[in-house]
Amino acid sequence: MNAVDSSLDAAPIADWRSYPISADLVNLVPASDALDTHWSDGRVSPFHYQWLRDNCACGQCVYSVTREQLFEIVDVPEQLHPQRTRIDEQGHLLIDWQDGHHSRFHPGWLRAHAYDEVSRAERRAQRPQSQLWGAEMSEQLPQFDYQAVMADDDALLQWLLAVRDIGLTQLRGVPTTEDVLPALAKRISFIRESNFGVLFDVQSKADADSNAYTSFNLPLHTDLPTRELQPGLQFLHCLVNDATGGESVFVDGFAIAEALHQEAPELFHTLCETPIEFRNRSRNSDYHRLAPIIALDAYGVVSEIRMGNFLRGAFDAPVERMPALYSAYRRFIAMTREPRFRVQRRLDAGQLWCFDNRRTLHARTEFDPASGARHFKGCYVDRDELLSRIHVLQR
Amino acid sequence: MNAVDSSLDAAPIADWRSYPISADLVNLVPASDALDTHWSDGRVSPFHYQWLRDNCACGQCVYSVTREQLFEIVDVPEQLHPQRTRIDEQGHLLIDWQDGHHSRFHPGWLRAHAYDEVSRAERRAQRPQSQLWGAEMSEQLPQFDYQAVMADDDALLQWLLAVRDIGLTQLRGVPTTEDVLPALAKRISFIRESNFGVLFDVQSKADADSNAYTSFNLPLHTDLPTRELQPGLQFLHCLVNDATGGESVFVDGFAIAEALHQEAPELFHTLCETPIEFRNRSRNSDYHRLAPIIALDAYGVVSEIRMGNFLRGAFDAPVERMPALYSAYRRFIAMTREPRFRVQRRLDAGQLWCFDNRRTLHARTEFDPASGARHFKGCYVDRDELLSRIHVLQR
Repeated sequence: MNAVDSSLDAAPIADWRSYPISADLVNLVPASDALDTHWSDGRVSPFHYQWLRDNCACGQCVYSVTREQLFEIVDVPEQLHPQRTRIDEQGHLLIDWQDGHHSRFHPGWLRAHAYDEVSRAERRAQRPQSQLWGAEMSEQLPQFDYQAVMADDDALLQWLLAVRDIGLTQLRGVPTTEDVLPALAKRISFIRESNFGVLFDVQSKADADSNAYTSFNLPLHTDLPTRELQPGLQFLHCLVNDATGGESVFVDGFAIAEALHQEAPELFHTLCETPIEFRNRSRNSDYHRLAPIIALDAYGVVSEIRMGNFLRGAFDAPVERMPALYSAYRRFIAMTREPRFRVQRRLDAGQLWCFDNRRTLHARTEFDPASGARHFKGCYVDRDELLSRIHVLQR
Repeated sequence: MNAVDSSLDAAPIADWRSYPISADLVNLVPASDALDTHWSDGRVSPFHYQWLRDNCACGQCVYSVTREQLFEIVDVPEQLHPQRTRIDEQGHLLIDWQDGHHSRFHPGWLRAHAYDEVSRAERRAQRPQSQLWGAEMSEQLPQFDYQAVMADDDALLQWLLAVRDIGLTQLRGVPTTEDVLPALAKRISFIRESNFGVLFDVQSKADADSNAYTSFNLPLHTDLPTRELQPGLQFLHCLVNDATGGESVFVDGFAIAEALHQEAPELFHTLCETPIEFRNRSRNSDYHRLAPIIALDAYGVVSEIRMGNFLRGAFDAPVERMPALYSAYRRFIAMTREPRFRVQRRLDAGQLWCFDNRRTLHARTEFDPASGARHFKGCYVDRDELLSRIHVLQR
């Protein structure tokens, strides 16, 4: 058996991750359409023959340069069976198929992909958990040093994990130059462009095409709720802030959703189940998106908040459901105003917010543009990029 | 009846669309929490007082420059009632609220946002419909002239509507220079960047980081199924194609989903309901996304296909559901190979494919890199941008 990575004995693995061996294969019991594998810790993991053949990572089935599959399962009969199965001296699973093909599976990889009930529950329990926060976060902001994040991969990883799990971070010691955001985004991957540009300038403008570009109080919101995919991370970099007022306000939308779930479950479900139209108003663009305010992932866990009162269209729901929708919406907005959830902080020159735009709602108190200059530079990076970078750094 | 934007008499409208008046308000019947409006064609549309107050577009409630809402519904009592309601001489709905606020609603706007059952069904029926296609599309490709699309907004709109509704188009008369794609994307909005860059080069490479960059046969797939949001539009611009082989193949994923729904509904539902992990393999990135192969929108209509056998992770489903998942997956792949669905065409220099990457699966037949040069330039633009541009062009 030939090898792929470093060891002559290793079974090929069709990705770049590593799979430590936490248990050994001790016995194989072939059933009619699956192989029951028995592990040294007593777990039994059935693997269907289809599944095993599908995941063969040999040099014929997977192109070794890209590690991408060449084989397609539809090219073998649905009833394909092994002629022989065994555990070799290195503890790998070997299968000789009826059609003459041979497969070899690394026990660490196999265990990491087992789909018996226990293995699936174990993987689910290992998913990253959001750490919910409220007003107390004001005194314990996750702060990171810009130069460290730029120079050191460990510092970078710690910062990105805080962005992922807490959703609100501040960088300090940031130069007040306009090349900071592109350089910082490059530490993750690349900037997500929008109709406001690659970078945007948060300043009061006479010809504003968004209330963000006025000096008004802005209610708590997510950016670009009018898009199918709201931007994942938002960066706000303070170049100058000499104006009176204009403090940054944040709430943890996941914490509010959780509190609503506890305190008024029927209102929570209304916000999960009722699609709302968000619609921008602009001479040059006309984005709209129909989506619920609270989105759940495939596991039923809150994964996204979508909120922007000034970008919301008229509610469109069956007549009999409209009062409940207003009750739920009012309650959510009222909660974003409750002191228990709110973090209010002034951002000074040389500081930078980076937060999860799909979780952490942000706002700005009114400011007086005559009192001094106020200029923030902003950009977005998507969640995919954050998570991919974390995975690569953790390899 | 006056027009909307130009007249002093017009009720303000908080967006940039226009709302022709298709029926007149003829009677108002206040109920306990809603106003029943009667229209000249007999329709009755109830509007809750909350809803009416929420959608007041006066200069206090909406900032006239951005047309974005300043008012928040939570700032008035939930039980707010009108003191007086009437239809004025211009046919607008006037409301004097108990708290002294006044609202005025344009009848065209009101009708367009009515949420009685008939109005909602009417709007739903007006949604754009996908035109499904099969092998016959090979002889009736929607073809457009590059120069016309670049110079003329009507030609642009016709092309974009074909992209939206058919999902497969070809441009002809395209210069074979590398500045074409940025210029063309700018006619819509901007390019969506990915880890493969702003523009990507589809060429056979020795150090390929994707099977796309080899000369292999590529099975039918969508691009970047490993991302939360797959790119909406894909552009493939042929600069040179002197190689033997390497024909473009397309199938309408929506047509296959519809056929599967008809021919084997239980397999269709399995593909709608089972999240599959897509995972890229790369030294520099590690994207993964758990999502079903067939996605439905809020109306239950097929809105997206996600497919890439070479970017698929191992299936992870409960043991008892694994055989059904393989049956459904095999059937879908087998259908992508059926001649009734397949369009196979060679793209020559000066031609360009633009297709809906979330609907139209694409592939390439194997080619011989020694037989001649083959170089396609590619990029992505998201669906949001396509739809926004169409809306603005249609105003």
